Amino acid sequence: MKKAALARGTRDFGPEQLAKRQYIINTIKEVYELYGFQPLETPAIENLSTLTGKYGDEGDQLLFKILNSGDYLKKTDTNMLVQRDFKKIMPVIAEKGLRYDLTVPFARYVVMNRNDLSFPFKRYQIQPVWRADRPQKGRYREFYQCDADVIGSNSLLNEVELIQIIDMVYKKLGLLSNISIKLNNRKILQGIIKVIHTADQSINKSDKIGLEKVFDADDKFTVITVAIDKLDKIGLKGVNAELANRGISEESINQLATFLNFEGNVQETLAFLKEKLADSAIGLKGVEEMSTILQYLDTDKMPIKLDISLARGLSYYTGTILEVVPLGTEMKGSINGGGRYDDLTSVFGLKGVSGVGFSFGLDRIYDVMEELDLFKEITTNKTKALFINFDKECQAYTFPLVTNLRKEGINVEIFPEPAANGKKLKRQMNYANKKNIPYVILTGSTEKESGLFSFKTMETGEQETLTIEAITERLK
Amino acid sequence: MKKAALARGTRDFGPEQLAKRQYIINTIKEVYELYGFQPLETPAIENLSTLTGKYGDEGDQLLFKILNSGDYLKKTDTNMLVQRDFKKIMPVIAEKGLRYDLTVPFARYVVMNRNDLSFPFKRYQIQPVWRADRPQKGRYREFYQCDADVIGSNSLLNEVELIQIIDMVYKKLGLLSNISIKLNNRKILQGIIKVIHTADQSINKSDKIGLEKVFDADDKFTVITVAIDKLDKIGLKGVNAELANRGISEESINQLATFLNFEGNVQETLAFLKEKLADSAIGLKGVEEMSTILQYLDTDKMPIKLDISLARGLSYYTGTILEVVPLGTEMKGSINGGGRYDDLTSVFGLKGVSGVGFSFGLDRIYDVMEELDLFKEITTNKTKALFINFDKECQAYTFPLVTNLRKEGINVEIFPEPAANGKKLKRQMNYANKKNIPYVILTGSTEKESGLFSFKTMETGEQETLTIEAITERLK
Repeated sequence: MKKAALARGTRDFGPEQLAKRQYIINTIKEVYELYGFQPLETPAIENLSTLTGKYGDEGDQLLFKILNSGDYLKKTDTNMLVQRDFKKIMPVIAEKGLRYDLTVPFARYVVMNRNDLSFPFKRYQIQPVWRADRPQKGRYREFYQCDADVIGSNSLLNEVELIQIIDMVYKKLGLLSNISIKLNNRKILQGIIKVIHTADQSINKSDKIGLEKVFDADDKFTVITVAIDKLDKIGLKGVNAELANRGISEESINQLATFLNFEGNVQETLAFLKEKLADSAIGLKGVEEMSTILQYLDTDKMPIKLDISLARGLSYYTGTILEVVPLGTEMKGSINGGGRYDDLTSVFGLKGVSGVGFSFGLDRIYDVMEELDLFKEITTNKTKALFINFDKECQAYTFPLVTNLRKEGINVEIFPEPAANGKKLKRQMNYANKKNIPYVILTGSTEKESGLFSFKTMETGEQETLTIEAITERLK
Repeated sequence: MKKAALARGTRDFGPEQLAKRQYIINTIKEVYELYGFQPLETPAIENLSTLTGKYGDEGDQLLFKILNSGDYLKKTDTNMLVQRDFKKIMPVIAEKGLRYDLTVPFARYVVMNRNDLSFPFKRYQIQPVWRADRPQKGRYREFYQCDADVIGSNSLLNEVELIQIIDMVYKKLGLLSNISIKLNNRKILQGIIKVIHTADQSINKSDKIGLEKVFDADDKFTVITVAIDKLDKIGLKGVNAELANRGISEESINQLATFLNFEGNVQETLAFLKEKLADSAIGLKGVEEMSTILQYLDTDKMPIKLDISLARGLSYYTGTILEVVPLGTEMKGSINGGGRYDDLTSVFGLKGVSGVGFSFGLDRIYDVMEELDLFKEITTNKTKALFINFDKECQAYTFPLVTNLRKEGINVEIFPEPAANGKKLKRQMNYANKKNIPYVILTGSTEKESGLFSFKTMETGEQETLTIEAITERLK
């Protein structure tokens, strides 16, 4: 006998949780369709060659790998095995893996179907993804992402619409006052780094490397953005320490701090950046993109924050980046994230196709809504009435009625086992109670003779005597 | 650069396929809820200890196994590795696997939540499962099952309701005239084997083993049921050869053939079995169960066939078994299957809980409906109108109108990029065409001055001049 247990970091979802999750999913879906996005689903299993190298080293480690079928050791050589070099052996014994996000499978799909799709291609995708992460509060190994992407259009109108979608979804979920939509632009970050580097007098005099050089190498840019991204968690001191540790000069760090410390509303921040980035073409381009996007948005009514410290981890972003964070809740970290990427599909051989998209994190939104008690109006059970099953005669008499009600589209149940005694009758009433069935219908011998039924409202205990026609009307 | 490709036996689903799949799923869901079933979802990843040993040896081989994270070789010993004994090494390096069906995770769920559930527990579950099978027509490595089970009730009314569900789902899908619902009962099969054994004069005289003895051992009973189950594929000759090969006496094989050869309607078959199984208590019990179930069903209007040769592969069935096969289509094999099991949860430590359930095979039903062209009325795109984007001025003028229409719940799009010249305008019209958007709205400089819009019906080419209020009404 095996002990019944879930795999670590995974969950079952019963009727109540599913009703709540479905409510969030339906809300997101409805808004996506309002904006002309069409659904896509990709398989859970992908070739590892599709997945590896897209999420950084850490991401590669978090991929779930699927062992090849049959004799998976066939292609390994014995030396490899004896040396126990598990990293080298892995691609030989495991050629498939589980979907890590929805963006890379989407890029694969676009490249495979490039000749049949009409661009701009707007797709949404709501499916689970898997990560071999250490499970903790708000972090699961199997969780849902709800993505929307537009690919094949440079227009900033796409960014505008995505932000409107975020605003509308959270409004519909009743969460709008509990979130902040953080916006930034990778081009602004590039401009800041460029400007600081140019002004840094210390660079040629010391052996410290300048930000410019750091920026030249893609992975070093990631190092900086990753450091900035931690501002919320480790504070400016922590960020500065990390930057110094990576070889950034003190002068550059101090200059960067003036940007990170800036506080102001959207218009003030734009003015500040425009002035400070006057000498960086790319920086000004970022500011201009941001201004254009904001012009189209009703910023007074949206919880938008222009956040210079927002950097996002993934390296493929090239323009607008955004994140949504919950306010005043236990949940730390973002519940939405995304941005503009100019060349995501090139890794699969399709160059020069720009896209922009984001993802709602279903499980985190669920947790936040649960914490804030926002699921009040969701009912789980859909059965409208239970026919009590007194005995075999009663069963034979009522079952055809139950069948007819179902044919009319009314959700009803008959308790499958005849009661035959008092204790068992109580079990049937408990069943109705536990399942939140609002009405119970009793058919005793008196009722059978008269053709009438006792119709009991569970909440009030009120009992009426009705014909089956009257009951049908009541349940409709 | 990696070539973009799907993993073998997996598929992407675009908007049209998803709309059709969703139509089938919604139909099944609706009927399940009509009968009081509640939804459950379990994780894709389960501990292999939960999955192995439940599906027979072949099933165990078809399980997708997930490599442990980090240094998965840590717990292996070098001898094992040098000997390349992949079967022995496997449980050490892979402790998790992908869901193979929905029944075993359901049994695990019931055992884990036994104290919180109210029995009889009626759940439905519609999720993908994974099998490392050789892909071929109608057989995929990732496919959907749509299960319904009632657990914690012996009542045959549950069987009746499940058959009604099958009937109603196929009626709603327009497939009822293209299917046959095959019914049998494991107790009838047991009775047949018992009766044949008792009558077999040859058993004590030869070294052939009798069916009784075969039946005593569970795995031998499976051997017989598996042989019988192949009747459709290999014919009676094939079945007989297989039985002889397994050591069944000629006399018993001939006796069995009289059962397998029997042809008759439901009532005739019941009468035949009642007479033939007069000396087997268990056989008669099976016939009685079948009669009771059929009494509650409108058998004249349902494509029900009592099929003595139906045996089902899985060993856990103990009573009613059923299968639905499509008629007059290319699809071979069943599109539905299930039955009564008296002790499924005991493997996880919960004994004496009887259940009954079945599964709709979504992907096969889809293939059959596609072949029969039954998806006529499904529309995929939901965008009602496209606003043409002539230039930046037009964009700035129309975007707020688009936003307002969306706030009213009307699915509209604006092409994200200004046309600025004729060729690009054609691209926008093509976009509307390809996406089946029924109306296109044009806002030139004349329109802007007059406050009126050109409203074009794509199908007829008819063009009207309307106010935005009139357009709103038309699109609602």
